[in-house]
Amino acid sequence: MDLHILDHRLRVTSISKSGLEQYTHPLIKLIFLRNRTRCKFFSLTETPENYTVVLDEEGFKELQPSEHLQVEGSTWLPLNVVSNGNASSSSQAVGVTKIAKSVIAPLAEQHVSVFMLSTYQTDFILVREKDLAVVVETLAEEFNVFREEGGESVPVHSQDACNGLQRNGREVPQATVHPVLIPENHFCVMSLDPDTLPAIATTLIDVLFYSNRSKEDASVDQDMEYIVFFSFSLIDGYISLVMDTEAQRQFPTDLLFTSSSGELWRMVRIGGQPLGFDECGIVAQISQPLADSDISAYYISTFSFDHALVPEEDLASVTEMLQAQRMSS
Amino acid sequence: MDLHILDHRLRVTSISKSGLEQYTHPLIKLIFLRNRTRCKFFSLTETPENYTVVLDEEGFKELQPSEHLQVEGSTWLPLNVVSNGNASSSSQAVGVTKIAKSVIAPLAEQHVSVFMLSTYQTDFILVREKDLAVVVETLAEEFNVFREEGGESVPVHSQDACNGLQRNGREVPQATVHPVLIPENHFCVMSLDPDTLPAIATTLIDVLFYSNRSKEDASVDQDMEYIVFFSFSLIDGYISLVMDTEAQRQFPTDLLFTSSSGELWRMVRIGGQPLGFDECGIVAQISQPLADSDISAYYISTFSFDHALVPEEDLASVTEMLQAQRMSS
Repeated sequence: MDLHILDHRLRVTSISKSGLEQYTHPLIKLIFLRNRTRCKFFSLTETPENYTVVLDEEGFKELQPSEHLQVEGSTWLPLNVVSNGNASSSSQAVGVTKIAKSVIAPLAEQHVSVFMLSTYQTDFILVREKDLAVVVETLAEEFNVFREEGGESVPVHSQDACNGLQRNGREVPQATVHPVLIPENHFCVMSLDPDTLPAIATTLIDVLFYSNRSKEDASVDQDMEYIVFFSFSLIDGYISLVMDTEAQRQFPTDLLFTSSSGELWRMVRIGGQPLGFDECGIVAQISQPLADSDISAYYISTFSFDHALVPEEDLASVTEMLQAQRMSS
Repeated sequence: MDLHILDHRLRVTSISKSGLEQYTHPLIKLIFLRNRTRCKFFSLTETPENYTVVLDEEGFKELQPSEHLQVEGSTWLPLNVVSNGNASSSSQAVGVTKIAKSVIAPLAEQHVSVFMLSTYQTDFILVREKDLAVVVETLAEEFNVFREEGGESVPVHSQDACNGLQRNGREVPQATVHPVLIPENHFCVMSLDPDTLPAIATTLIDVLFYSNRSKEDASVDQDMEYIVFFSFSLIDGYISLVMDTEAQRQFPTDLLFTSSSGELWRMVRIGGQPLGFDECGIVAQISQPLADSDISAYYISTFSFDHALVPEEDLASVTEMLQAQRMSS
C-alpha cells in the first residue's frame, strides 16, 4: 500500500461559540467562494464546545486573530493511505478501521500524536510536521511513502526524512482509558457534487451560522442524550458532510448522497475532559478493538474531544468492547 | 388616487466599507433567512462611500452598534401611491416621475424632507414620523390617505393626523442646485421570485460581501466614469435589484427578470458633497423637469447622495434639462 504525505500545511484552530458571528465573513468565503480563495483544505466541525476549523495556510490567513480564535501551535501535515487494488487485508470495513493496525497503532507506539479527520471520501491522518521523520521511518516498514509536491508524488525514503533523527522512545505507552459518551443521535456521512453546493448554500449557512443549536444552553443536555455535531469539509475539491438525521431533514433529499441509502451511524465521543493535542494512542485505543472485530468507523478529532462513528447495528458490540477495556485497565 | 402610509417604522443607517465584514452575519440573515427574522422591510444599497441600510425596527435590532454603523436619528414611514386603475394622468412614464407633481412637489413646498426608494415593484416615499401630520394635510388635497395597520387600511383624515399642528412655512424653498455626476455604467432594475432567492445566494453574497469593487481605491475612478452601485431590497416579500450590466453578468440569466428585456438605465448622481437628510426639494428639483417631459425615472436616496436612473435614450434630454436648470439658478 502507498502512504501519501499531502501537499497541505495545516493549522488546527478553534472558534468559540460566541465568536462565530464575527468569523462568518471569512468562513462563508472559504466554504462557498472557491474563486476568491486559494485554500484547498478546509474543515469545520461544530461540537457543543466550539467550532474546530482545520485549514491550510492560505485559509488560515483569512482568520483574523481575536480572543475567540484559539490556534494550536504546530503545523500539521495530512497523510493519506491509498490501497492499490491488491488489498492485503481481507477487511470489508471502511474508515479508520482499515488503517488501525498499519498506521494508527505503529504511530501510537512511537508516541506520535495524530489528529484524525475522516471524510466521506477518505481518512486523513494529521501529524505534526516536526514528527515527520519519525512518521516516515515508522511507516516505511509497511508502506511505500510518497510526498505530494506541486501535483507530483515523490518517493520518500526514511533516511531522507529522518536525517539521523532519533526515533521517539520505543516502549508502548501506558494508555489512559478515557470515559466515553454515546449520545442518541443518528448520523449520516454524506457528499455533494461541488457544483451543486450553491443549491444548498442558504440551508448550510442556516445550519452552520444561525441554528439555535449553537446556543450553549441548548447544545448538550444533562445526560448527553443529544449532541450538537455537524462537520463540513472541502478538501481538494471534494465535499464531505457529517450531520445527524435532524439536520439532514433540512436539506433537499436529491442533492446529498451517501454510500448506501439509509446507512446510519452512532457516535462514541471520547474524553471526559478536553483531550489536548499531546496525548498519543487515543485513536489507537478505540480503533484497535474495532479492527479486531472488523467494524467500520469514521473518526473525527476536534479541538476538545475525539469522535468515532460506528454503524448503528454494531453499537452493542462496541459498547461491550469499551466496557471490557475499562475493566481491564 | 390612494396614498398608503405603510405599517413599517424604518431606520436609515449606513455601514462603512471597512465595517461590512463585521455585519455579514446579521445582513445575510436579513437577506436570506426569512424564517429567522420578523423584518419585513429591508434595503441595502452599496455606493462608493458606504452601504446604506434601510430597515424596520425588527431588522434594526439585528445591527449591533459600532463605530462602523451610522444611524440617522429619526423614525421614517414609507408612503406608497396606489393608482386605482382610473389613472388621472396620461403619463406612460414609470417611477418617481408619476408622483413628481402629486407628492414630491407638494412635500417640497411644505419643507418636508423625503428619502426616496424606488424598487422594481413600486416607489416608496419615506418621510419622518414627526412630519406625518404635515404630510397628511398636504397630500389629503389630492389623495385618499390610508394608514396600514395590522393588514387593514384605515382611512386617515388630515385633522386626525394634524391635531392642530401648524403646517411648515409655506413659501417655496429656494432650492440649491446640486452638482450632478453621470457615470458610464448601464443599469438594470430587476426582480426575482423569492423562492428562487436561494439559487442566486452564493452569487449575491459574492457581489455584496466579497467583490473587490468594495475596496475604496477601486470604487470611484477619478472622473467617475464608473460608479459602484448595487441595490437589493426585500420588502413585504418582494425582491428588487438594481445593478449595472457588469454585475448582472455574474447572475444566471434565467432567474432575474426585468419589465422589458434589455431595458437599460443611466444614472444621474446628485450631490457634490454628502446631502444630509434635512434639505428639502432635492428630489423635486430633478423629478419636476422629468415629469414635464414625461421621462421615467427610478430614484434611490442613500446616506450620502441621491441617485436618479433615467432611460438610456432619454439621457441627452435629461442632461440638457439639468444644464438649463444650472444656468437659470
